[in-house]
Amino acid sequence: MATVRLLSDEEAPAESRAVFDEIRAARKTDFVNNFWRALAHDPAQLADTWRRLSQVMAPGALDPLVKELIYVAVSTANGCSYCVHSHTAAARAKGMTPAMHTELLAVIGMASQTNALATTLQVPTDPRFQED
Amino acid sequence: MATVRLLSDEEAPAESRAVFDEIRAARKTDFVNNFWRALAHDPAQLADTWRRLSQVMAPGALDPLVKELIYVAVSTANGCSYCVHSHTAAARAKGMTPAMHTELLAVIGMASQTNALATTLQVPTDPRFQED
Amino acid sequence: MATVRLLSDEEAPAESRAVFDEIRAARKTDFVNNFWRALAHDPAQLADTWRRLSQVMAPGALDPLVKELIYVAVSTANGCSYCVHSHTAAARAKGMTPAMHTELLAVIGMASQTNALATTLQVPTDPRFQED
Amino acid sequence: MATVRLLSDEEAPAESRAVFDEIRAARKTDFVNNFWRALAHDPAQLADTWRRLSQVMAPGALDPLVKELIYVAVSTANGCSYCVHSHTAAARAKGMTPAMHTELLAVIGMASQTNALATTLQVPTDPRFQED
Amino acid sequence: MATVRLLSDEEAPAESRAVFDEIRAARKTDFVNNFWRALAHDPAQLADTWRRLSQVMAPGALDPLVKELIYVAVSTANGCSYCVHSHTAAARAKGMTPAMHTELLAVIGMASQTNALATTLQVPTDPRFQED
Amino acid sequence: MATVRLLSDEEAPAESRAVFDEIRAARKTDFVNNFWRALAHDPAQLADTWRRLSQVMAPGALDPLVKELIYVAVSTANGCSYCVHSHTAAARAKGMTPAMHTELLAVIGMASQTNALATTLQVPTDPRFQED
Repeated sequence: MATVRLLSDEEAPAESRAVFDEIRAARKTDFVNNFWRALAHDPAQLADTWRRLSQVMAPGALDPLVKELIYVAVSTANGCSYCVHSHTAAARAKGMTPAMHTELLAVIGMASQTNALATTLQVPTDPRFQED
Repeated sequence: MATVRLLSDEEAPAESRAVFDEIRAARKTDFVNNFWRALAHDPAQLADTWRRLSQVMAPGALDPLVKELIYVAVSTANGCSYCVHSHTAAARAKGMTPAMHTELLAVIGMASQTNALATTLQVPTDPRFQED
Repeated sequence: MATVRLLSDEEAPAESRAVFDEIRAARKTDFVNNFWRALAHDPAQLADTWRRLSQVMAPGALDPLVKELIYVAVSTANGCSYCVHSHTAAARAKGMTPAMHTELLAVIGMASQTNALATTLQVPTDPRFQED
Repeated sequence: MATVRLLSDEEAPAESRAVFDEIRAARKTDFVNNFWRALAHDPAQLADTWRRLSQVMAPGALDPLVKELIYVAVSTANGCSYCVHSHTAAARAKGMTPAMHTELLAVIGMASQTNALATTLQVPTDPRFQED
Repeated sequence: MATVRLLSDEEAPAESRAVFDEIRAARKTDFVNNFWRALAHDPAQLADTWRRLSQVMAPGALDPLVKELIYVAVSTANGCSYCVHSHTAAARAKGMTPAMHTELLAVIGMASQTNALATTLQVPTDPRFQED
Repeated sequence: MATVRLLSDEEAPAESRAVFDEIRAARKTDFVNNFWRALAHDPAQLADTWRRLSQVMAPGALDPLVKELIYVAVSTANGCSYCVHSHTAAARAKGMTPAMHTELLAVIGMASQTNALATTLQVPTDPRFQED
């Protein structure tokens, strides 16, 4: 169903297999999901994407669960079905409760609605919202 | 610049002025931003939108600052300039630091990139990401 | 502000000026809006776009005002500020009342919200909604 | 396939079952579609969404079929597959003929094309399209 | 799964069958893909879409492969799964190598990321990027 | 107008000024555009974005002008006004002629239209378009 072959460990170039092993070690699981298997045709692209993702999603000023919720929100608005599924699973693994999921839904829905209202009305930005 | 007239307090119907007063009281400021002035032509639409927004953004399983970050993320992906401005301002008012803003940017950027990669590749969802 | 020069009548190639005149005749006004002035660099592209638009928006199984409302809805969801402005003006010229505008807003907002909910939840399509 | 379990009548909380019954009564059918079964985990979110949807889609200044056409248009532009399916079915149930569907397609396609042209060209809004 | 029946040669109106034959002749294959079978309910819409597509994608100032790459990029950003699949296949048929596909991915991903950064930051356009 | 202050050379942290100098050297101009001045608050984010962009847009299996055309196409579909302006300027600097711009417009418009048609019709992907 993908537009490229999803590479098994056997089919992947050696450098891509090495990244699969990094993913397994970081996540403490043998499972490597399809996204990485699709990227594995080009080891440089695979390695760069995985390493930046790891860095961006690490604990920092925002905690990893909050980052996953933001990821689900962006993926929803961009209509990426794969990403909504994989990052909802990741959010659950990092502690998202059903109550948090319900509120996430509510905020995404409310934002989508008011985004549409502001765009239909073409509301001009208030001067005080502009950074000066 | 809006597609409807932004109503001043004097121009707004009495029921809309009453909602303006609710907004002022809740936010402890005399300022009513343009979004509400554009919605004020229909008091029922104004009141319903304001009341649901207040409820959705109130503290719950997720804290109000996290909700604002999600709101900015959705507004970005939907390309709503007004909403990005107003909710970035709201996030700052609720405690978003420059370091949080930098990480918010990084997560939105990373999600947008991997959303695009997964969509270009049409990666099929792994069975284990499906709720059963 | 455009990425190409908006051509005045004097600057436009003769074949583009002829399309400007078709637009003026069809709309019974001397005014030619910026969209057409931006397209006028290539007379074939200008003529093709104008003629198909005229045909698509003509009365048929759907009336012209309904078509304009649909146009505003699509333009909103696609985040095209120019198009929201020009087609809201066109809808008003074809009879959109303030009450219709309020309901248009409500439907666009509701659809945007439930679109987001269905996408966040990745709801599978019920078999009975599938054409067989 | 959803990111949450679709709740059967037996699994749904009692307050959600009551909303299912409202849906059945309003639509004069025993069928409750997946969208509501996914929302049923939180009875308040389910009830609020259903009640506002009923109100927004009721006859008013715009008739219910026109509202469904607008809903399909927004859902298309937002890329919500579930929503395109369910609201196309709803539009048919409310009287959308094949000729109307063909014209709906034509308007959505034309709008999407000119939205893209206006955005690529970054056409500035004509002053006369601005509400004053 | 479509919202309309995909018409076989036998079911299609005669004028639509004639367009199917144009498609077969142009592509030197007996295969007619689902997109055209879905459009075949209205022969005028089918013929117009096919003929304009043929014209737009023909060799010109840009070569046909470059046009297919642009088509895949737009289809990705618009989240059209069908279109990503069909135009990735078309790009391969016109000579897209795996190395080109990897670079296409990289450019789409990079653009999507910086689009999101520029929108989150609401960066104002530099005067020198404006056509004068 | 941005949601963060655009930093002048004087205001930028020293590491960001160093990236400004890399940009100037690479582009052989003293001009540093607003996008980089907005990112300059965080030198790591600025440096990472600039270096990856330089790498992605360098000559490879696809030439730099083709990459800019793809960038404009993605930026259009994502509705990023800033990016459409800056990458249209970059495409011109790399050799985009008016005839190429006209064809770019035509392809983006055609893709946007057929994306919308395929989505409204929910056309299922033909098995032969699936990678096996």
